[in-house]
Amino acid sequence: MSFPTPLRGVVPPVITPLTPSGEVDVPSVRRLTAHLIEAGVHGLFLLGSSGETAYLTDAQRRTALEAAVDTAGGRVPVLAGVIDTTTARVLDRAADAVRAGADALVATAPFYTRTHPVEIADHFRRVRSGADLPLFAYDIPVAVHTKLPRGLVLDLAADGTLTGLKDSSGDEGSLRRLLVELRRGTPDFSVLTGSELTVDCALLAGADGVVPGLGNVDAHGYVRLYEAARAGDWAAARAEQDRLAALYALTEVGDPAVMGPSSSALGAFKAAVHLRGLIDCAATAAPQVPLGAAAVARVRTHLAEAGLL
Amino acid sequence: MSFPTPLRGVVPPVITPLTPSGEVDVPSVRRLTAHLIEAGVHGLFLLGSSGETAYLTDAQRRTALEAAVDTAGGRVPVLAGVIDTTTARVLDRAADAVRAGADALVATAPFYTRTHPVEIADHFRRVRSGADLPLFAYDIPVAVHTKLPRGLVLDLAADGTLTGLKDSSGDEGSLRRLLVELRRGTPDFSVLTGSELTVDCALLAGADGVVPGLGNVDAHGYVRLYEAARAGDWAAARAEQDRLAALYALTEVGDPAVMGPSSSALGAFKAAVHLRGLIDCAATAAPQVPLGAAAVARVRTHLAEAGLL
Amino acid sequence: MSFPTPLRGVVPPVITPLTPSGEVDVPSVRRLTAHLIEAGVHGLFLLGSSGETAYLTDAQRRTALEAAVDTAGGRVPVLAGVIDTTTARVLDRAADAVRAGADALVATAPFYTRTHPVEIADHFRRVRSGADLPLFAYDIPVAVHTKLPRGLVLDLAADGTLTGLKDSSGDEGSLRRLLVELRRGTPDFSVLTGSELTVDCALLAGADGVVPGLGNVDAHGYVRLYEAARAGDWAAARAEQDRLAALYALTEVGDPAVMGPSSSALGAFKAAVHLRGLIDCAATAAPQVPLGAAAVARVRTHLAEAGLL
Amino acid sequence: MSFPTPLRGVVPPVITPLTPSGEVDVPSVRRLTAHLIEAGVHGLFLLGSSGETAYLTDAQRRTALEAAVDTAGGRVPVLAGVIDTTTARVLDRAADAVRAGADALVATAPFYTRTHPVEIADHFRRVRSGADLPLFAYDIPVAVHTKLPRGLVLDLAADGTLTGLKDSSGDEGSLRRLLVELRRGTPDFSVLTGSELTVDCALLAGADGVVPGLGNVDAHGYVRLYEAARAGDWAAARAEQDRLAALYALTEVGDPAVMGPSSSALGAFKAAVHLRGLIDCAATAAPQVPLGAAAVARVRTHLAEAGLL
Repeated sequence: MSFPTPLRGVVPPVITPLTPSGEVDVPSVRRLTAHLIEAGVHGLFLLGSSGETAYLTDAQRRTALEAAVDTAGGRVPVLAGVIDTTTARVLDRAADAVRAGADALVATAPFYTRTHPVEIADHFRRVRSGADLPLFAYDIPVAVHTKLPRGLVLDLAADGTLTGLKDSSGDEGSLRRLLVELRRGTPDFSVLTGSELTVDCALLAGADGVVPGLGNVDAHGYVRLYEAARAGDWAAARAEQDRLAALYALTEVGDPAVMGPSSSALGAFKAAVHLRGLIDCAATAAPQVPLGAAAVARVRTHLAEAGLL
Repeated sequence: MSFPTPLRGVVPPVITPLTPSGEVDVPSVRRLTAHLIEAGVHGLFLLGSSGETAYLTDAQRRTALEAAVDTAGGRVPVLAGVIDTTTARVLDRAADAVRAGADALVATAPFYTRTHPVEIADHFRRVRSGADLPLFAYDIPVAVHTKLPRGLVLDLAADGTLTGLKDSSGDEGSLRRLLVELRRGTPDFSVLTGSELTVDCALLAGADGVVPGLGNVDAHGYVRLYEAARAGDWAAARAEQDRLAALYALTEVGDPAVMGPSSSALGAFKAAVHLRGLIDCAATAAPQVPLGAAAVARVRTHLAEAGLL
Repeated sequence: MSFPTPLRGVVPPVITPLTPSGEVDVPSVRRLTAHLIEAGVHGLFLLGSSGETAYLTDAQRRTALEAAVDTAGGRVPVLAGVIDTTTARVLDRAADAVRAGADALVATAPFYTRTHPVEIADHFRRVRSGADLPLFAYDIPVAVHTKLPRGLVLDLAADGTLTGLKDSSGDEGSLRRLLVELRRGTPDFSVLTGSELTVDCALLAGADGVVPGLGNVDAHGYVRLYEAARAGDWAAARAEQDRLAALYALTEVGDPAVMGPSSSALGAFKAAVHLRGLIDCAATAAPQVPLGAAAVARVRTHLAEAGLL
Repeated sequence: MSFPTPLRGVVPPVITPLTPSGEVDVPSVRRLTAHLIEAGVHGLFLLGSSGETAYLTDAQRRTALEAAVDTAGGRVPVLAGVIDTTTARVLDRAADAVRAGADALVATAPFYTRTHPVEIADHFRRVRSGADLPLFAYDIPVAVHTKLPRGLVLDLAADGTLTGLKDSSGDEGSLRRLLVELRRGTPDFSVLTGSELTVDCALLAGADGVVPGLGNVDAHGYVRLYEAARAGDWAAARAEQDRLAALYALTEVGDPAVMGPSSSALGAFKAAVHLRGLIDCAATAAPQVPLGAAAVARVRTHLAEAGLL
């Protein structure tokens, strides 16, 4: 397919359903992917943080991506995370993604190692020239412990290295300044926010779309929110966002004394999607701690209150 | 005056004009304060971060606050920062603020020492009961290195310890969840954002107002932004915010090789207000590094581009 | 007294005993101070982090310092912390310390505000020239969130601004490189480690002495450790340090679910000193959370195991 | 070979020589490895941070490891880093290392994702049971942004999950407390410090050995330091460490305005080893920035001053 320029709308970071033994559950990938497309999303982002990509082997990543690409069948573009520590390793992941049929790549700054803006810029340029697909930068300091500087993004947008940005930095002030500057020179550059609790705000500020982890649970809600914003009905957009912000409380059902925030949030997303019948099993990848029965019951309550059961 | 419940609108964190020798320039405090009130602001916040409170002696703090209270003359409420490391010291600052005639107090979590939510809650309760004025919590992790937990703010709002929150955390997702929860139980609680680059968004999300450092430079702009948002004219609010976000670039005129971000941003605010004729001298307090002539020239250019000269 | 150049040995950061109602307990200050001097310490550091300086009003700080200076009576030098956010405020604290009779001052980098090495250097130079006493830099990133750069310390040692350094950074690698460089040019500069768990190592590496919070509890132990190291008996120094490192576990008796690390560690120091009969009351300053009876019982067990009861 | 219990001595984290085009330079791996063994080191650690493991593809990692194992020929044990984000991916790396003939594995806590002590413990247990080789924990917060809690290491030492620890945390106080507690129950557990500037101190404190990046440049120096410490000649150990600490300045030859600390330090190590004739090419992996000629000249000066040319 011809990649949309700019990419706009709701692009959920698709969770990766697993079997009880920890393998990729291909039929569930297909069922969930089809559901999201039917709900009206404008693209799919496979192998991101919500996709547990940090927990999947290379083989598992390929399996999940291939199933999603095949199910999408060109109806919406499929973006593939190519998450690895530095350039050469990212290029190996990119080669896999190209073979699996992805429409675009999403890469972070180098991590594990300490880096520098000059090195980050070189990294993106080498990834772009080493893999013949549109490239999105994934700004996610909570994972890579570096914030992409605004000037770096502007440079890489201007010279065509980057097609777009997925901003999960949570730095809405910096994003606003970036949007103001981007609109002057590179209107086709796509800015997608990963901050799923302030999508109405990001769209008001000029972002093109959203990559909401919670969109796995309520894709229809995010599509409604996006459509309301596009129509200029900010009151409706705000109300939808408020409802989704309340629903987001399900990410905190896990007990912080015995598990990390990833176990709780990804566990809750998977439990919710499973309770809605969209995947066969709610298991998360090791060494994440499974949610207990009480936590799952609270996920169910949140879904019921949101009218999603 | 009777304190507004909730406090709404534009409440600039007033800079503290200094003389060339580093003393508080009282006539300039009065001139700037009068200008802000005439521009239509809804309150004044003295002795915050923009007021260089961390750089002022207790005597200087009292002098600046007294001048502002006297100039305001009850036309708008005056909030006073009571910034110090822990409870007993904050209460000394609060006693000074009460004597100077402040209408409300603004306190942070303890800093310098390592703290805990249980201790922070006790801190605010002791400050509230030790000083008979409405109390705002000032959430500013960049300064105190602790983020106020959402549950703590909700508890202190519900039991009347806090009258409001000044949120300079930059965590807009957490703020959204807080706003959704506050609206259910404590509608009179005032939420003011300190994130001056996303005010349209914060108001769309339900915040009551804004405490913009840049409001010292362009108070009329923030008042227009606030009024547009109150009227539901989000396109106008967004355009005004975009203009102000572009103007904000003046905070980066300082050379990061020879000065910190405080020297650059506060220096630029003061240079701009001085260039606009609202204060007599642009000096910042030691050991901040003064802006050079080239940097001041760039501040002038930004002002000219924004139509403020 | 003539200030020793360099200052060497054990310089405990003296805790500030409080009455049950939270005022400075002057008789206990005197009793504890006298005990420490009789144990053989080489100096006293009042109003540091262990002294709860962040929790004390200016009046309380003066009271505690005056009592210690009077008790010391010139037998050992008294260093006074002048802990405040920036230069002008530190100079107010310094004036108080000079009046109280301190022999030297100890100041940190600016905090609460964001700063820069150029500003930090100017800060120390202004404090030194504004108060006629020897000045130590206090490198404590956990409190001020800035690490003093090695080059900055070397510059301020070379030009006479600083008489010494209290290093509580925990960065032993950087400290080693500093010591190697200092020995070449400024042998009279005093380097005191605040890392009370690795004193044998610091002395082996060439440090002049130690400022151990745990020295309030077991001053004799630290004096023995120091004397063994001075005599080149590293096996004895190591054994003493190992014993003290085991004793340090008493700082963790507090329940982290309901209090911060300051409440636990300072509470345990005070409980231990109280159990040893050196102060009248173990209270810590608000809003720290008091240790419960079970925690105090564990402090007692630690003391008994260390032969200190 | 039978793995030594505990492993003691100098275990350099071997750099990975590359060709000008960025491939692993196998003859140089062999030459450097043979040199280190002849210098008297007690083991080799391949594929650690100094080995640029974050920059190497899986194929490159295997190539370097196989060459080192073959050259070692059982004369010293070869430890292999299995650095990847989480458990399943680490197990893939471990399978490669087993096939390549490694004698032990070295794994970090999970990274990129946010984690929790319960998850970290499960991670190490799964890695240990999934790969039949002794397992060392690699505590390196600067890379993975989590510090291994002391209690976790003690538990995993006691139950046999871990054979040892490579401590690159820089937290010497916590390490001391760990050593004191380990000596009571698990004397065969091996503690190796990665803090190459304080090796005399770590050995005095009871550590078993050191993993010094600088040992690629001056293996003989670290062997002398270790032997002096083992003989109880702490003055000699200190003098050797002081010399090596001064030499360490070569890691700072790179210009921080145009490159990160990894580019500078790894670039300098490689330049030094190349200048000493131990490898054919000083290239580092992309996107690190190469050192310029002036920086390399300064490396040469440092080597000359240390008598290494």
